[in-house]
Amino acid sequence: MPIKVTVWNEFRHEKESEKIAAIYPDGIHGAIAAGLSGRGDFDIRVATLDAPANGLPDEILAQTDVLLWWGHKAHRDVLDDTVDRVQRRVLDGMGMVVLHSGHHSKIFKRLMGTTCNLKWREANDKERIWVVNPAHPIAEGIGDYIEIPEEEMYGEHFDIPEPDSLVFVSWFTGGEVFRSGCCYERGAGKIFYFRPGHESYPTYHNADVLKVIANGIRWTKPVDRPLPVYGLNGPNAPLESLPPKG
Amino acid sequence: MPIKVTVWNEFRHEKESEKIAAIYPDGIHGAIAAGLSGRGDFDIRVATLDAPANGLPDEILAQTDVLLWWGHKAHRDVLDDTVDRVQRRVLDGMGMVVLHSGHHSKIFKRLMGTTCNLKWREANDKERIWVVNPAHPIAEGIGDYIEIPEEEMYGEHFDIPEPDSLVFVSWFTGGEVFRSGCCYERGAGKIFYFRPGHESYPTYHNADVLKVIANGIRWTKPVDRPLPVYGLNGPNAPLESLPPKG
Amino acid sequence: MPIKVTVWNEFRHEKESEKIAAIYPDGIHGAIAAGLSGRGDFDIRVATLDAPANGLPDEILAQTDVLLWWGHKAHRDVLDDTVDRVQRRVLDGMGMVVLHSGHHSKIFKRLMGTTCNLKWREANDKERIWVVNPAHPIAEGIGDYIEIPEEEMYGEHFDIPEPDSLVFVSWFTGGEVFRSGCCYERGAGKIFYFRPGHESYPTYHNADVLKVIANGIRWTKPVDRPLPVYGLNGPNAPLESLPPKG
Amino acid sequence: MPIKVTVWNEFRHEKESEKIAAIYPDGIHGAIAAGLSGRGDFDIRVATLDAPANGLPDEILAQTDVLLWWGHKAHRDVLDDTVDRVQRRVLDGMGMVVLHSGHHSKIFKRLMGTTCNLKWREANDKERIWVVNPAHPIAEGIGDYIEIPEEEMYGEHFDIPEPDSLVFVSWFTGGEVFRSGCCYERGAGKIFYFRPGHESYPTYHNADVLKVIANGIRWTKPVDRPLPVYGLNGPNAPLESLPPKG
Repeated sequence: MPIKVTVWNEFRHEKESEKIAAIYPDGIHGAIAAGLSGRGDFDIRVATLDAPANGLPDEILAQTDVLLWWGHKAHRDVLDDTVDRVQRRVLDGMGMVVLHSGHHSKIFKRLMGTTCNLKWREANDKERIWVVNPAHPIAEGIGDYIEIPEEEMYGEHFDIPEPDSLVFVSWFTGGEVFRSGCCYERGAGKIFYFRPGHESYPTYHNADVLKVIANGIRWTKPVDRPLPVYGLNGPNAPLESLPPKG
Repeated sequence: MPIKVTVWNEFRHEKESEKIAAIYPDGIHGAIAAGLSGRGDFDIRVATLDAPANGLPDEILAQTDVLLWWGHKAHRDVLDDTVDRVQRRVLDGMGMVVLHSGHHSKIFKRLMGTTCNLKWREANDKERIWVVNPAHPIAEGIGDYIEIPEEEMYGEHFDIPEPDSLVFVSWFTGGEVFRSGCCYERGAGKIFYFRPGHESYPTYHNADVLKVIANGIRWTKPVDRPLPVYGLNGPNAPLESLPPKG
Repeated sequence: MPIKVTVWNEFRHEKESEKIAAIYPDGIHGAIAAGLSGRGDFDIRVATLDAPANGLPDEILAQTDVLLWWGHKAHRDVLDDTVDRVQRRVLDGMGMVVLHSGHHSKIFKRLMGTTCNLKWREANDKERIWVVNPAHPIAEGIGDYIEIPEEEMYGEHFDIPEPDSLVFVSWFTGGEVFRSGCCYERGAGKIFYFRPGHESYPTYHNADVLKVIANGIRWTKPVDRPLPVYGLNGPNAPLESLPPKG
Repeated sequence: MPIKVTVWNEFRHEKESEKIAAIYPDGIHGAIAAGLSGRGDFDIRVATLDAPANGLPDEILAQTDVLLWWGHKAHRDVLDDTVDRVQRRVLDGMGMVVLHSGHHSKIFKRLMGTTCNLKWREANDKERIWVVNPAHPIAEGIGDYIEIPEEEMYGEHFDIPEPDSLVFVSWFTGGEVFRSGCCYERGAGKIFYFRPGHESYPTYHNADVLKVIANGIRWTKPVDRPLPVYGLNGPNAPLESLPPKG
């Protein structure tokens, strides 16, 4: 059965800058959607910030197994209601792949509980994304490292909880390192943060970057099981076997 | 130098129930504060929900190394502004020891990013709190397990991020288990969640429980170092060594 | 492509005890192999201790994606050379599912670096195996818990490294808990330890236990990527860009 | 009470190379021992490979709270019996700080269960050791990073289990990254691996490097509690409450 993927994009830079539109004529979401086809059994749709309900009404979220998130300059324009509903879906099992500047999105900060701050510099650094966990399925098909000729730099300290699994660490020309492939489990859902992808570089046309995103989708897809039962007793608690209440 | 501890308590049950006031005549905060004296080099104050700024104005938070948190029936009465300010202080290094029903406090849910839901039952279960990490300093002075003759049951699934370290797992008469000693690092701060302590049982008079809380305070105390520098470049990025920007 | 599974069993109890042979007439390996068919795209073979090279000559290991391991009373009879070769294969990517008393096998202790000691008691305890990580694919198809009417008890402290992911925690009638579903990554390989399965109980006829083992096989299967390059420089180190050696 | 520290050094390079003897006239162990004085309440002794029992007879190990380990070219000369006894002591609570090329020591590989392989190059790379976990006490007193003007390069993949806590990540001139500050809990003991310190560089005269080693000693010191009870039942199992054995 195909994995139902929704590629969400802020989609502002591409409309406001000719330079960025030239790199991503169909938007970052369009480039990612096109790049994913042929890389897995995916059923892909796209959604953007300026659509009603930020493109993510309940019926779309309900049909989404894995949500990709790219945002940058308009994090504040995402409705709090959207953030609430996406968080709820993640905790109920929907996967998320959060890309690049999505680190500062409301939804990622909500799920992490931290500021998600970092160092940054836009100076055409070369980036090398090293595999530090060769056993992880998100590294499938990737050699010792991915090299990206020019990218924005992100540097430590990256204010995130220690990842449940750390898959990639980036090196930058200017002297910085960054935990650039971070796996989390939250509720019944899984989240993969993947660093590369500044809007002014053609990073989402890079085959290895797309391969990692496809791997991330497979890793974050929901697990098929009933949701946990919470609250008083739970249906199965053997009250009859308990000592009489005092 | 003593660790500056603030014991925060909702302090409602003790005022509303004679039974609970009989167990904790000076409030849960009073019992914990009294129980901690002599267990470490602590400088202890208390704070309660109904004081101005929920007892935690900025000047108190600024003088707090480790904040203990007990809340239960009035989580909603904690001001959002208090939650914001406490979160900020934790990310800047203040330790937190979150006790029992504090799992559902706004601040704990904020720091975890999850619902923190669980199963529960008030039926005088016996609880055994087993040490699963004997190398952890929070288990100092504790044998294979702590037994509490009567307690409220909390059961899995407990909807928290997988702990950075899991120190204790509880067994209950009725058939449940619970991850009852959970360590987290968030920003520059550390958080220890410790399960026991329902208001209707004399748990905070138990010497082992108090010992664990004292250990938790020592483990969560702030680390003495400058806070990380975030944002553009950071002061130390060697821009001069970078390739010329394209 | 099917996952190539080798079910390894010590296969001594079944030959020496009528009672155990009655539970497992085809051996524990036979019961597991039969129970796995229909639960996934598996290509299953079996291997036993008393065959040449302990049933695991290089050509078998080379054709094994995931190795299941059940051993108990004859850990010492496993050849050190077998242990060396299995460890090497795991670090090169082969998955392992270690079952029950396999906790004390030479290979598991080798991979863990600890004694893997625990408490135990054979007294028909009831066991409840609770899911503590509902986002993990090893919990697929499993409700809040699996109940096993009679089993040997294993209790904490279990002397293992803190699992990379903890999926299950067991409750026992007699008052103990146990981390009973533990995930590890070692080198390019993954290891899943799963507790239930004492030889004197029909545990490997339990549908949920078999489902978890099948899930464990899928989770531990090798990742398709080149092995990391180790040693001097690595082929890709850009020596030409380095400062001249002093 | 002072922490009893034993600084173990292979002590071969310093006797065989004038260049290295010039950097470490009292041996690497001597430099570290001198550098630690005044940095904590430490009671320091030294031990070297060529002494009887590799300088670590039982009576020395019994009086050691934390063992520092520097080895490089003579890992094979360490007696297997020494490795066995040191492992036993670590699992019983003794801390270990493993330095630099100690990654390939028998004892570290024994405790990790992996090859501990890595990439390396001796070409005067500049190293920047970034703090990725500002909440960890091992980072006490350290700013955003430590810079070492010239060091040997170690690069990923570093074949270790994913650390229980990752405190430092190194950047190197030549394009590599390395997880250079790794914390582990094994049995009742704690292990801290810290990367810098090639014999041909004056790294152990660097104040920040010494500060981290001192922090590592404090973090790995034993926890004061009884060792876990293993084996049949354990003394506390309430057999009387169990169902009659079948």
